[in-house]
Amino acid sequence: MRRTITALCVCALSLSCGSAQLASSPGPDNAATPAPSSRTWSYGLVIHGGAGTIVRAKMSDGELADRKVTLEKALRAGYAVLDGGGAAIDAVQAVITRLEDSPLFNAGKGSVFTNAGTIEMDASIMDGATLQAGAVAGVKRTKNPILAARKVMTDSPHVLLAGEGADNFAAARGLQQMPADYFWTEKRKKQLEKRRAKVAKHGTVGAVALDKAGNLAAGTSTGGMMNKRWGRVGDSPIIAAGTYAKNTTAAVSCTGHGEFFIRQAVAFSVSARIEFGKQSLQDAARAVMEQQLGPMGAKGGLIAIDRSGHIAMPYNTRGMYRGWMRQGEKPQVAIWSGDDEPRPASP
Amino acid sequence: MRRTITALCVCALSLSCGSAQLASSPGPDNAATPAPSSRTWSYGLVIHGGAGTIVRAKMSDGELADRKVTLEKALRAGYAVLDGGGAAIDAVQAVITRLEDSPLFNAGKGSVFTNAGTIEMDASIMDGATLQAGAVAGVKRTKNPILAARKVMTDSPHVLLAGEGADNFAAARGLQQMPADYFWTEKRKKQLEKRRAKVAKHGTVGAVALDKAGNLAAGTSTGGMMNKRWGRVGDSPIIAAGTYAKNTTAAVSCTGHGEFFIRQAVAFSVSARIEFGKQSLQDAARAVMEQQLGPMGAKGGLIAIDRSGHIAMPYNTRGMYRGWMRQGEKPQVAIWSGDDEPRPASP
Repeated sequence: MRRTITALCVCALSLSCGSAQLASSPGPDNAATPAPSSRTWSYGLVIHGGAGTIVRAKMSDGELADRKVTLEKALRAGYAVLDGGGAAIDAVQAVITRLEDSPLFNAGKGSVFTNAGTIEMDASIMDGATLQAGAVAGVKRTKNPILAARKVMTDSPHVLLAGEGADNFAAARGLQQMPADYFWTEKRKKQLEKRRAKVAKHGTVGAVALDKAGNLAAGTSTGGMMNKRWGRVGDSPIIAAGTYAKNTTAAVSCTGHGEFFIRQAVAFSVSARIEFGKQSLQDAARAVMEQQLGPMGAKGGLIAIDRSGHIAMPYNTRGMYRGWMRQGEKPQVAIWSGDDEPRPASP
Repeated sequence: MRRTITALCVCALSLSCGSAQLASSPGPDNAATPAPSSRTWSYGLVIHGGAGTIVRAKMSDGELADRKVTLEKALRAGYAVLDGGGAAIDAVQAVITRLEDSPLFNAGKGSVFTNAGTIEMDASIMDGATLQAGAVAGVKRTKNPILAARKVMTDSPHVLLAGEGADNFAAARGLQQMPADYFWTEKRKKQLEKRRAKVAKHGTVGAVALDKAGNLAAGTSTGGMMNKRWGRVGDSPIIAAGTYAKNTTAAVSCTGHGEFFIRQAVAFSVSARIEFGKQSLQDAARAVMEQQLGPMGAKGGLIAIDRSGHIAMPYNTRGMYRGWMRQGEKPQVAIWSGDDEPRPASP
């Protein structure tokens, strides 16, 4: 338990003066004591590219820079949607499609392989204004699973489609289908699986956003757990586990050991603690990590934003690829806990 | 909104003197006022066979009797496990395997057909003592999906397996696989689909139990939505949506229009309202129906039991097949709201 608390990194940037205190004085009491910042933002977003054992020494300067640049570009794309008066859900989609199109993160093009050497991708998206949601599990051909999730939400009466049927649905709705070698060529497979294994087994990408109209949205996309078998589905396509958004509470996207996130209904728990327990976003996010995931030995993290633009990005792994940008702020990108101080990610 | 409240039937049998009041004075205020019965039971269970537009006039006396007898037999099987000192999760499994083996309910043998004329079954099970859980989605050959869910929980590191992989996993773990015609012969298909369409599009079976050791468990199994396409997955295999169990809060199993149950994380919401909102089981169950599902126009019901043996069985459809039996009580089986008064289901 002690170890878990020590390892927990809470970046509560709405408390620009309180981040250090939060990290240094964790405890059950804090969870019941809302301490929201008085400052609010009318729009903004947080994104992630997965939490895990991200070791700086095992990454070249070039790899590190590539990942940061990709995160920042995705962040700016989402921010541009919000800044232009666009909807939170469109900002979430703009971010995630870009991360899916990058080979650097475990989603879309960069998805890891299953035990059978195939790709099985999962994604979900949720609109906090209407509680409408869509998700796909185990898609193999659809270029951008987050777009398939969006289509499930808007163009079907369903929330979750799985397997071949989900790809067929996406294709019927005009979404781009790709041959298997788009996701990885054989050469890249051999080169990169080995490297990827050191970096993150459970990589995921996600985004949460607040728009000028006060609406929240969240989305998550992943290639799943490397070497997964038996049609394993993690938390990413599961509304309430990997993704949740509700205007009156928060938008949440998770990354980590999915089985624990399902059992603890992590994304919904943040919302439920705010709604039913009257906790602040920061307290709710931390309590989920410390009181629900920590005792199980579950590793991972989450990003969250509320309707006041307060954000939380707790994780209990060595690092979490993440970025955030709110009304009038510069884009911020971070990986380890030392990166948490607000500063520009690049000039 | 008014219509929804009127249609909501709450059977709060722990309040043997208060059931009528609860049904006749629903309102938001009640949800925040815990009014638990002082009586407790050391073990017991609640089961369901689906909520829907169950019309007495469209059912022969024989059909009605068959369904009641099947429910009561399943109920007694679960009770026998508990009475003998067995585990809640084994009682849940005993109930659900029996309902899956019956052609009368939409699960296992009685599963409805997909649009493609196939069977795709979903099930989940959860142990409230450990928060361990297992689930399968879209299985086509496994005789008892609830046993596959249990195997996922006990014999794999995963929570949810989907599609062909889930059947393969179940087969590899020694679970009985059946040819397609076990689930329905062509003749029965034609006869019964027509009839079934009038009865319930979203039938599901489920059970929740409290054992002598104080452990809670929940399970749910379904053939899904009739004529479903695209690999649609409903709430039944989704932990937090269709099924949840936590010793300190409640065990919950849901039935109804699955998409809404996913978006509202219904099973987990009951638990979260108890844990974070300090609501009683009855208030939590009713608030989920009235405040979360009702405003969306979502139809269905749920069954729940807490560690004191208090039970709740709210639904907002015309009827819900259900049964309950606690320490020292006679088995009770009911379908419509007039059936709610505690009385023996059969001599």
